[in-house]
Amino acid sequence: MKYEPVKNIALTGDGSAVRIIDQTLLPGELKTIDLRGRDELYEAIYSLRVRGAPAIGIFAAYAVYVLARTYGQEEFFARLDADCDHLISSRPTAVNLARQIGRMRETAYALRGRAEEEIVSALRTEAEAIHAEDVAMCRAIAEAGLSLLNEGDSVLTHCNAGPLATSEYGTGLGPLMLAAERGIELKAYVDETRPLLQGARLTAWELQNAGIDCTLICDNMAALAMAQGRIQAVLAGCDRMAANGDAANKIGTSGAAIIAKHYGVPVYILLPSSTVDMDCPTGADIPIELRSGDEIRSMWYEKPMAPENVKCWNPAFDVTDHSLITAIVTEKGVLYPPFEKSLKEAFGGMRS
Amino acid sequence: MKYEPVKNIALTGDGSAVRIIDQTLLPGELKTIDLRGRDELYEAIYSLRVRGAPAIGIFAAYAVYVLARTYGQEEFFARLDADCDHLISSRPTAVNLARQIGRMRETAYALRGRAEEEIVSALRTEAEAIHAEDVAMCRAIAEAGLSLLNEGDSVLTHCNAGPLATSEYGTGLGPLMLAAERGIELKAYVDETRPLLQGARLTAWELQNAGIDCTLICDNMAALAMAQGRIQAVLAGCDRMAANGDAANKIGTSGAAIIAKHYGVPVYILLPSSTVDMDCPTGADIPIELRSGDEIRSMWYEKPMAPENVKCWNPAFDVTDHSLITAIVTEKGVLYPPFEKSLKEAFGGMRS
Repeated sequence: MKYEPVKNIALTGDGSAVRIIDQTLLPGELKTIDLRGRDELYEAIYSLRVRGAPAIGIFAAYAVYVLARTYGQEEFFARLDADCDHLISSRPTAVNLARQIGRMRETAYALRGRAEEEIVSALRTEAEAIHAEDVAMCRAIAEAGLSLLNEGDSVLTHCNAGPLATSEYGTGLGPLMLAAERGIELKAYVDETRPLLQGARLTAWELQNAGIDCTLICDNMAALAMAQGRIQAVLAGCDRMAANGDAANKIGTSGAAIIAKHYGVPVYILLPSSTVDMDCPTGADIPIELRSGDEIRSMWYEKPMAPENVKCWNPAFDVTDHSLITAIVTEKGVLYPPFEKSLKEAFGGMRS
Repeated sequence: MKYEPVKNIALTGDGSAVRIIDQTLLPGELKTIDLRGRDELYEAIYSLRVRGAPAIGIFAAYAVYVLARTYGQEEFFARLDADCDHLISSRPTAVNLARQIGRMRETAYALRGRAEEEIVSALRTEAEAIHAEDVAMCRAIAEAGLSLLNEGDSVLTHCNAGPLATSEYGTGLGPLMLAAERGIELKAYVDETRPLLQGARLTAWELQNAGIDCTLICDNMAALAMAQGRIQAVLAGCDRMAANGDAANKIGTSGAAIIAKHYGVPVYILLPSSTVDMDCPTGADIPIELRSGDEIRSMWYEKPMAPENVKCWNPAFDVTDHSLITAIVTEKGVLYPPFEKSLKEAFGGMRS
């Protein structure tokens, strides 16, 4: 049976609410919720019911539309501004959130003076465009990535760069999802991805849901899997890529890439071109977020699994050196080393 | 303040019971328990209140003595045989357990016909000798390992090869413990060691208890720690070493060694010479134990953290290729590559 894409974000039939899969209930429960109120839309982002940078951007665009339907002619722009600012404050560091809300606000302001109905209608069109662009972008990444794999391959995944974080295909998981849709058999080993377990909780769920043969492992088991020839490629997403191809991604990606290189397994980094930062020369210029030690010591557990006061070091990201990356996959195609040159040729115009 | 070794196993003052630290209560609670009954001695091994191959052997030797005190002249050997067989059955794959109980039984049988008091006294002497030999062996490993480190170094540890698993010093942790005793400052990054978290639960506790500056990390963070120059050596124990130096140890050791080699960080494997199996040509001949997927999916957690029915692959060990090992440390000193030659020179006589 072929894969039916997960609809993680959509408008309800009457357009009065945003319907999402509540990601906080996964993998235990698959439940959709309809959100229409100012506070519940904010809370959905804040509490990670919707997560993943592109998904948050799409959700927020629909949210602006759903809220705008209720403003009325008189207070339209005052309420729009207040709601947009409020939504942006739900996750202040999420670049896509501010960017897509900015697009929605510009769409409305461009029609200032027109009838409320006309502006609201344009907002719906813009939100749907934002969504469609993400689907098309993920599809193009998936298509390019799939060209690098052979039927029957097993890939290693790390963290979650799947449909739940984007729309329909995902980035890092895109080739697997597209293969499932086409009935091409691929298999996956899924790093659980400590400490937040995005692999166990989300990626394993998404792959199972798509009917893909997947096997969950602890992050430290990937080396043995590669030594035994169980893995033909590493697929990972990316949070920020420097102009030389150095790729910041979830902690553990660089270790998996080093081990892959040792065993001659190719490493593919899949990302939208908007994630390539041509103003950032190398990975050394990318700051690494340090998070609370409680995520290591006690989170998820029935009781703390380490001495209460033990010092922890909990970096959320690491940088995979460009020398470890076999190819970079964006919606514009596959890039090969030397990445400084191939990225410049592809995206050089982006540099200020 | 210098380190006072942990007494994880000892006889009580009157010799009527074995006193151990109940390892199932760590790291939450440090509690010693006195065990004298046949069933409670068995249960302590079965339930992992005492764990680690050398520690189990020492414990069982004392247990045989404590039980033998109660036999009386008449039924001495019948009861000794029954209790020895019973104790061995508590963990049938633990080689040290059977070996040390065998030594105790031989000691008794060598004195068959003598007065019960004399045999019991000889059993106490033998158990104390087994314990003292382990202390001396661990001390010699620690001494040799410490010679490879410089004051101020930070080492990476994986799993637990410390005092709780042996006596006083440990193998993999031995150099750290000896340094603490001598007031030499070393630091440690401690891999939590998924899925059973021996690093978080036991190693972190042992190092803290010894006053050693230690930092707990997830296994997938070691690569970034090495990239940032935070680690000067990897110290690991070993469950079985082949004649070419390939080293089977807790899952994740090989990945850490590959990453260490990538960053030019030396990898030291510390083990008693009895763990070198000169009859096993290479690591390919060492079988890898596969354990239940529940250890990945649901163990320790308040609720399962992965889809209920997701397939898991849970190998308990991996093999670190000899080419990744900088030096092998045993109680007989430090061996360097080529290990096939240096191991043969050191232990070649062991080969049948």
